[in-house]
Amino acid sequence: MKALEEKIVRDGLALGTEIVKVDSFLNHQIDTEFLLQLGDEFARLFADAAPSKILTMESSGISVAVATALSFGKLPVVFAKKTAPSTMVEDTYSADVMSFTRGKVSTARVAKKFISPRDRVLIIDDFLAHGEAASGLAEIVRQSGAKLVGIGAVIEKAFQGGREKLAPYSCPVVALARIGQIENGEIHFLPAD
Amino acid sequence: MKALEEKIVRDGLALGTEIVKVDSFLNHQIDTEFLLQLGDEFARLFADAAPSKILTMESSGISVAVATALSFGKLPVVFAKKTAPSTMVEDTYSADVMSFTRGKVSTARVAKKFISPRDRVLIIDDFLAHGEAASGLAEIVRQSGAKLVGIGAVIEKAFQGGREKLAPYSCPVVALARIGQIENGEIHFLPAD
Repeated sequence: MKALEEKIVRDGLALGTEIVKVDSFLNHQIDTEFLLQLGDEFARLFADAAPSKILTMESSGISVAVATALSFGKLPVVFAKKTAPSTMVEDTYSADVMSFTRGKVSTARVAKKFISPRDRVLIIDDFLAHGEAASGLAEIVRQSGAKLVGIGAVIEKAFQGGREKLAPYSCPVVALARIGQIENGEIHFLPAD
Repeated sequence: MKALEEKIVRDGLALGTEIVKVDSFLNHQIDTEFLLQLGDEFARLFADAAPSKILTMESSGISVAVATALSFGKLPVVFAKKTAPSTMVEDTYSADVMSFTRGKVSTARVAKKFISPRDRVLIIDDFLAHGEAASGLAEIVRQSGAKLVGIGAVIEKAFQGGREKLAPYSCPVVALARIGQIENGEIHFLPAD
């Protein structure tokens, strides 16, 4: 998605060889006008997947998942919780997820009642890096018996192996911008999906 | 908001005397069609506030904040972070926030560059209960020098004192549904704002 690559270059920040900060429009401040464009693009790319539900991980995935759900005609969104509030008393599907930017493992949980075996689930998240969040969500879908119809990330850091980690789930993986390398403050993109 | 009260009664769950679960449409699964109605209602009620930015707390506030921002003509949203990722290296405004449902204090942070003294900030969240999250966000706005033009919550548990706690911030406080009492599995509403 050309507009996204341009926005990453213009408003993002490359740090070292591994980090691209997009907190000015995606995961701290949200440019809601641009957000709708991201949702439209996911809906276009996953049109054949015909999802019945969008699944994401709190927190940064929520806005993109909502935008995608709206573009698909107002589908329901479910976001996995990384900490369980005292009000979460029902049975859950769960998967352990390592966060490299936070340096800890947390358990992602989804109440069983919100994914049924009849669902066609599309996973949407802000980043695909090491693939921890996406594979945790895919594992939750597997537990539910629902069909995983795709995995979409706004930005893929292709050099961190996430896509390879998702291969066992045998579903289309799509990133709107694919970063192949970060060096000397410059971001090099790979051809888009 | 009558449609919200009806939805809480139909799809929500009252537990004991203090908890109302709305995870089927608001803070775990999200009914995105209904979400847009909530955003429209906030935009109507806060039209005179003329906000330039919507501020919320991760995670459950994000979807409502985005919907409100869209209804206001695609304003930017900023969500405060309760854990600081390693990529958050800049100066922040911060406030300690007690979560009663999680039984712990966390520090909410917003990068200084995302709220300027010229901003007119509208705080939006899913719940107003003890007022911890909202007053933490209001404190962050105070630190920034921006004008706090209002605080909106989807659901207020009026018996937990949050509104009183927000009085020092001298701004309009609006809840779309105000719960006065929960007893024997029944939810009693107060007149709406």
